[in-house]
Amino acid sequence: MSFLILMHDPLAGTLLLLATLWLAAKVGGELALRLKLPAVTGELVAGLAFAVLHRAWTAFPDVAASPATELLGGLGVVVLMFAVGLESTVPQMLKVGVASLRVALIGVVLPMAAGLAGAWLLLPQGSPLVLDLFIGACLCATSIGISAQVLREKGASHSVAGRIIVGAAVVDDVLGLLVLVAVSGLVGAAGGAAGPSLAGTLALALGFLAVALTLGRLATPHLFSLASRFRGRQVLLPLGLGFAFLLAWLGNLAGLASIVGAYAAGLILEPAHIEDLERRERRTLEELVHPLVSVLSPLFFVLMGARIDPSAFFRPATLGFAAVLAVLGVAGKLLAGYGGGRGVRAAVVGWGMVPRGEVGLIFVATGAQLQLNGVPLLSADVQAGVIGALLLTTIAGPVGLGWVLRGRRQR
Amino acid sequence: MSFLILMHDPLAGTLLLLATLWLAAKVGGELALRLKLPAVTGELVAGLAFAVLHRAWTAFPDVAASPATELLGGLGVVVLMFAVGLESTVPQMLKVGVASLRVALIGVVLPMAAGLAGAWLLLPQGSPLVLDLFIGACLCATSIGISAQVLREKGASHSVAGRIIVGAAVVDDVLGLLVLVAVSGLVGAAGGAAGPSLAGTLALALGFLAVALTLGRLATPHLFSLASRFRGRQVLLPLGLGFAFLLAWLGNLAGLASIVGAYAAGLILEPAHIEDLERRERRTLEELVHPLVSVLSPLFFVLMGARIDPSAFFRPATLGFAAVLAVLGVAGKLLAGYGGGRGVRAAVVGWGMVPRGEVGLIFVATGAQLQLNGVPLLSADVQAGVIGALLLTTIAGPVGLGWVLRGRRQR
Repeated sequence: MSFLILMHDPLAGTLLLLATLWLAAKVGGELALRLKLPAVTGELVAGLAFAVLHRAWTAFPDVAASPATELLGGLGVVVLMFAVGLESTVPQMLKVGVASLRVALIGVVLPMAAGLAGAWLLLPQGSPLVLDLFIGACLCATSIGISAQVLREKGASHSVAGRIIVGAAVVDDVLGLLVLVAVSGLVGAAGGAAGPSLAGTLALALGFLAVALTLGRLATPHLFSLASRFRGRQVLLPLGLGFAFLLAWLGNLAGLASIVGAYAAGLILEPAHIEDLERRERRTLEELVHPLVSVLSPLFFVLMGARIDPSAFFRPATLGFAAVLAVLGVAGKLLAGYGGGRGVRAAVVGWGMVPRGEVGLIFVATGAQLQLNGVPLLSADVQAGVIGALLLTTIAGPVGLGWVLRGRRQR
Repeated sequence: MSFLILMHDPLAGTLLLLATLWLAAKVGGELALRLKLPAVTGELVAGLAFAVLHRAWTAFPDVAASPATELLGGLGVVVLMFAVGLESTVPQMLKVGVASLRVALIGVVLPMAAGLAGAWLLLPQGSPLVLDLFIGACLCATSIGISAQVLREKGASHSVAGRIIVGAAVVDDVLGLLVLVAVSGLVGAAGGAAGPSLAGTLALALGFLAVALTLGRLATPHLFSLASRFRGRQVLLPLGLGFAFLLAWLGNLAGLASIVGAYAAGLILEPAHIEDLERRERRTLEELVHPLVSVLSPLFFVLMGARIDPSAFFRPATLGFAAVLAVLGVAGKLLAGYGGGRGVRAAVVGWGMVPRGEVGLIFVATGAQLQLNGVPLLSADVQAGVIGALLLTTIAGPVGLGWVLRGRRQR
């Protein structure tokens, strides 16, 4: 008789897992706060603890392999970046545009050069130069989700430094895409294959941003004034979020990370466009999005922590390689902080650019698939070292940013 | 060169799907409102439209088969019932307990008897009596999600009639479980197999409710006063939701639907338990849960609509059988409304109990797996007829409830 199994809700296991993840994230965050660290550090470490427990005791659920966590965490960082975008407007971002561009350019060139030099020194003689170049490239992308959360925790997301960081991260995403195309193209050329053109990739990515921030901004008031004629209640949040997800999808089509499109959607949507709906629902869109962020983003950070392979930290040679790369990567980004210009705290901007996360991991995954003369470009050891370096910056970033932001509310 | 595919976010398709579903749900809801129907009717029909489009044009995405929609919609109805639970307290529910019990009992016995009689008259001579009994059983479970949403739309969820409906739905879930066990046991006995004992099933389900509503209610203030010592912000919603999901999981272990556990969690959590956290976060838990409901529950209703097999409506014999069963089922539930007692609008209570949804479908799925003397208990035709009847009540329920609630704000 199988009917009691049918009464069993297939969702039940997911419900228990989510309850556990929220509890772990909040307890981890609390412990981090007591240690004067940003709460997000504790959420990452809570995820790492899950990974350790799963490896020590396989009956323990594998959080990183749960499709539900993957979906909800993935939505979490998209919603987080939409919320960050809502806190600024296009004109405000244009004001810090040149500073962001400077920070992003220095923050790509320096870590890449440092990584290239480090790899050249540390790897065995005779390694191909494109390998060193690729390792440098892995160090140049910024994962903005973590810094965005720290900035929110410290009430600094709409400070000038906060805007420069997020703006630089958007530029970084475009630059990172170009570097990936260029370096992969070099590897391909060494092997005789042709990749997509650099100019085409750049045109597509910049084209999306330009169209979204100009035409999108002109069209949005009309779209939402249509929506404000709806008589239903609870219309603003589903439609606002739908708009963000639509732009995230379009941005991804153009080769950018989904979070860049969601952030652009947040920038475009200004209070004036949706004031009718906000008045009727007695809540601003920002207020409506915050509960979603508070529920979904911890799942993203726990998931990021759970994806860390703890065994990478137990091999001294790998750890040494990772540590050197991480120091070089952090130093490059800290120097990039000075690109923010006068009157902006370079340390805040620099530390904000430090975390590498899923973007760097995508680079590594790409490198693992590239072949040079029939041999994979990245060996397992090199992969472990680079991943270790990315993880170290992922933990060091929020710690450093929390430290330089400590104590004072930012302008 | 596969790296551009790697830059493609695997989540991107889901983002587009969700944006589309929200837009369709809100447009459908708006059209329904203009036709003086509850918005949820329009969301169900929007889902049905997706099902029709998918069948007409297979390139159109199959919403009902999307794991993301299934997860988010499933979470949606759990969160919805948690929100409904938050609007009432245990003492308030005990006050309507006897009325709810009466409504539920009549609402199980009458539709079951009517369904039994209808099936006996309509099905070919010589069909086994347990088949008629099983068809009757399929008509007795109430799917509360839809009525809960209509009550919320009309501001009637904390009216006396609203409480009686939700309370009766909880009792219904226990009774439905018992009927399923009993009828399946009869079929099993006819075939010589033994099912779980009726007494054990009842004890487990009632035991969960009793322990949750007594011990759970005593323990909650202590748990949340611990949580109120947390320094982090944005703690209340993840922990509150985690608590709801935990009880949903426990309730499911005891054989009840997950939504019953989530509803119990909402009942247990009273403002006094969490006032410290609510003061610090400047929002009540109810206010924080509402944006989640507004985003997730439309996905649940669209999904329910999308799961309808439109072709079931094109066979006259099936449609006739379905229509007779649906009329009998509706009539039984409307009479049950009189169990609400004096001073309570019987029509409101009755129509609130009309929708059958996923619970009835679980019954049918169970029946499809049961065998009597080597033949499946429910033939494909009978299945289509019963499913058609369930669907008719699912559309008729919110229409009827919206109609009897029209125009006036409820006490």
